[in-house]
Amino acid sequence: MRWKRRHVLDTDDWTRDEIEGVLETTGAMIEVLSRPIRRAPPLRGRTVVLFFAEASTRTRVSFELAAKALSADVVNITASGSSVEKGESLYDTVRTLQALGGDVVVMRHSASGAPYFVAERTDAAVINAGDGWHAHPTQGLLDAYTLRGALGDLDGKRIVIVGDVLHSRVARSDINTLVPLGATVTLSGPPTLMPAPWRCGQPPRGVTYESDIDRALDGADAVIALRLQKERQEGGLLPSLREYTRVWGLTAARVERMRTGAPVMHPGPMNEGVEIDTAVAHGARSLVEKQVTNGVAVRMALLYLLVGTPSLEAAS
Amino acid sequence: MRWKRRHVLDTDDWTRDEIEGVLETTGAMIEVLSRPIRRAPPLRGRTVVLFFAEASTRTRVSFELAAKALSADVVNITASGSSVEKGESLYDTVRTLQALGGDVVVMRHSASGAPYFVAERTDAAVINAGDGWHAHPTQGLLDAYTLRGALGDLDGKRIVIVGDVLHSRVARSDINTLVPLGATVTLSGPPTLMPAPWRCGQPPRGVTYESDIDRALDGADAVIALRLQKERQEGGLLPSLREYTRVWGLTAARVERMRTGAPVMHPGPMNEGVEIDTAVAHGARSLVEKQVTNGVAVRMALLYLLVGTPSLEAAS
Amino acid sequence: MRWKRRHVLDTDDWTRDEIEGVLETTGAMIEVLSRPIRRAPPLRGRTVVLFFAEASTRTRVSFELAAKALSADVVNITASGSSVEKGESLYDTVRTLQALGGDVVVMRHSASGAPYFVAERTDAAVINAGDGWHAHPTQGLLDAYTLRGALGDLDGKRIVIVGDVLHSRVARSDINTLVPLGATVTLSGPPTLMPAPWRCGQPPRGVTYESDIDRALDGADAVIALRLQKERQEGGLLPSLREYTRVWGLTAARVERMRTGAPVMHPGPMNEGVEIDTAVAHGARSLVEKQVTNGVAVRMALLYLLVGTPSLEAAS
Repeated sequence: MRWKRRHVLDTDDWTRDEIEGVLETTGAMIEVLSRPIRRAPPLRGRTVVLFFAEASTRTRVSFELAAKALSADVVNITASGSSVEKGESLYDTVRTLQALGGDVVVMRHSASGAPYFVAERTDAAVINAGDGWHAHPTQGLLDAYTLRGALGDLDGKRIVIVGDVLHSRVARSDINTLVPLGATVTLSGPPTLMPAPWRCGQPPRGVTYESDIDRALDGADAVIALRLQKERQEGGLLPSLREYTRVWGLTAARVERMRTGAPVMHPGPMNEGVEIDTAVAHGARSLVEKQVTNGVAVRMALLYLLVGTPSLEAAS
Repeated sequence: MRWKRRHVLDTDDWTRDEIEGVLETTGAMIEVLSRPIRRAPPLRGRTVVLFFAEASTRTRVSFELAAKALSADVVNITASGSSVEKGESLYDTVRTLQALGGDVVVMRHSASGAPYFVAERTDAAVINAGDGWHAHPTQGLLDAYTLRGALGDLDGKRIVIVGDVLHSRVARSDINTLVPLGATVTLSGPPTLMPAPWRCGQPPRGVTYESDIDRALDGADAVIALRLQKERQEGGLLPSLREYTRVWGLTAARVERMRTGAPVMHPGPMNEGVEIDTAVAHGARSLVEKQVTNGVAVRMALLYLLVGTPSLEAAS
Repeated sequence: MRWKRRHVLDTDDWTRDEIEGVLETTGAMIEVLSRPIRRAPPLRGRTVVLFFAEASTRTRVSFELAAKALSADVVNITASGSSVEKGESLYDTVRTLQALGGDVVVMRHSASGAPYFVAERTDAAVINAGDGWHAHPTQGLLDAYTLRGALGDLDGKRIVIVGDVLHSRVARSDINTLVPLGATVTLSGPPTLMPAPWRCGQPPRGVTYESDIDRALDGADAVIALRLQKERQEGGLLPSLREYTRVWGLTAARVERMRTGAPVMHPGPMNEGVEIDTAVAHGARSLVEKQVTNGVAVRMALLYLLVGTPSLEAAS
């Protein structure tokens, strides 16, 4: 692969080659993380700005550790306590971050598309760490990396995604990564939480909708449970959490319907006892922690490809 | 210049030589920031505490990047989530920061004079990052550096400052830096937002008040728009934002009254459409981003002069 | 001493040898902190996660500076703005921190015992930075180190602890450290703020309760004042703050009852004028700042013993 992107905004237009290239680089980063001193110099003197206008721990810390492992300087900016509260425009915030010397802006924002707006207006490299319901490309890539580690080649594999697909940037980014790698995706979940066209016969290439979760799981190669935002219930899209759990929750019995040993994933944080049973969340099939570990390596790979100097030699 | 100050609290008693010395050192820091690896070792093993009892992003991040570019360790302390909330006295907080090993305390505080109180009670070097309406010395220095970059020697130049001068620590620090460098300052803005003695014939040396903004701008060499705190309106000092914008806003037509190409500055964050039009804020005359970039270098210069070791060699 | 613990959760089962070993290592860390460049490499490439589910400045910053002085990467996670707010279980948070690559988790939590729960479920080393009313082992160790610096050998010394012992993890950890080192501890304070068994004749070994503070202080070798949580008054355990101060406050006259020059300590943040007079808090006997300084070194010692590589050579 020859890397030629300036930003990572979405993977919806990535080729299989590009995805494979990032996964391969991720493998090299796993090696860096396995060294006695987990640190390499390719981002020395570079500044990575973590601009999280929506709260997050796991993703922010993952990027922070990824940047530090590559020797970058990291600056955290959160919406609370920042000029963002003073009513400064997103445009001005971003121009300021660039003028301050930011080489990479990692951003999470509640507005779908915000990272595109930013990327058009800055010389810094922009990485989308989640924008509204739209995309979460590093989650898609880390899920693909994790699934390949468990299943090998994804060609012909069938992955089930269960839950609130309608509001899920994770589901969109998983589809955008897994399908080009040769997998098919079966969506399952309440019809009210499914994009209407996908449910009514016009899903994206490689994707199908199955309203019966048990049938969806039968013989599947892996399942990804989505986080249920509890506020959906207040919005009238759900009868009750108990009802959701009964009909759509990943129980030990349900996951047995998949192929022997087929893995279970979740982007976290999990609502245990709602979309996933505790026994499944932490059972032998669970790759939840592996996803977290791989997430650091995927983010290192992207930072490295975007702004790193070639050398990955051990830190002096 | 031989640097001999222990703190940077205000520039009101600085000599022209001292100001020139900091601007010259700032130039050396711009060079460090232009290196492929933007990092030099003079604060290695030193601890810079960023103690921001008032919210700020731009200034805090600017100091953080400045300290890191000089290889310092940086610790962030904000009022929310700190002992400050538990009712600990400022005195105790500061003694604690020193006992923890802080070499420099960069502080922002809503109380005018707070940094003086602190400086008298600690061995650490104190840099005032803005105290109440009183002073914001690093803003004054970065504005001077930016104006010199645009205009050359400031002797005989006339700089207009427009807006809420009464509540502006930026205006005070700009005056304290620009006038010793040979510039004159014309203030303009609503009489209710001007210090009464300055408006009524007793302004500081080198400063005049002009109640008509158009006359103030005629033939000026540069203009600095101040941020309008929207709460001034609630305080009865302003009829309405729309009225303010109509009478005092920096429009494209107004800035044309200055000399050809005369620059426009703003300390940020900007209320676009209130004190400054979007077209002016981001137009060809705007030095707003240059101010941000220079701000990092000015803060590096001060940290270096206060506690740095002499060498600026490239990081190993 | 041969160090063989995986975690630092409480010192209630530590031998005198173990405590002495940590204090000796602390001395070596004081030496590192006295170097021109206060930095040593033994945690290079290690990640220390500061997970503070309760607000704190002094302890968090102390650990942050300790970790950085040993060249670790540090990640801050606070309850506000983290997944903790999203209702993720403590178990999942901790598994995530480990999966992200945390080598040490320093945690403060309002629930007594939370660090034990965590330590059983992670491969990372866990340091308890304060859990509920239960323990604050690094405070006990730094108090012991500070007292030894002032008094020499603690064998046969009598230390008074004054205040709200019932709710104080500091008092418990001080007792657990000072008594094995040969000191005796006299507790004094309102009976409503004393553990009932300790007050009624069944205190731990080496500890006595004395309801008259003046008698407690007579001839004592040192006194530790505890912070009074002002909410105790609302809970009905205190008549009024003024009453508390009159009966139990450490005044200049009271501290004169101790041996000549006997020191005064406080874990901070102090309520000056409540549990301690300002003149005493900052008087010649006060070791409050020394405690803060030593706190960094004690925390360095523990990080070093838990996960450091042997070399303490100067940073290159």
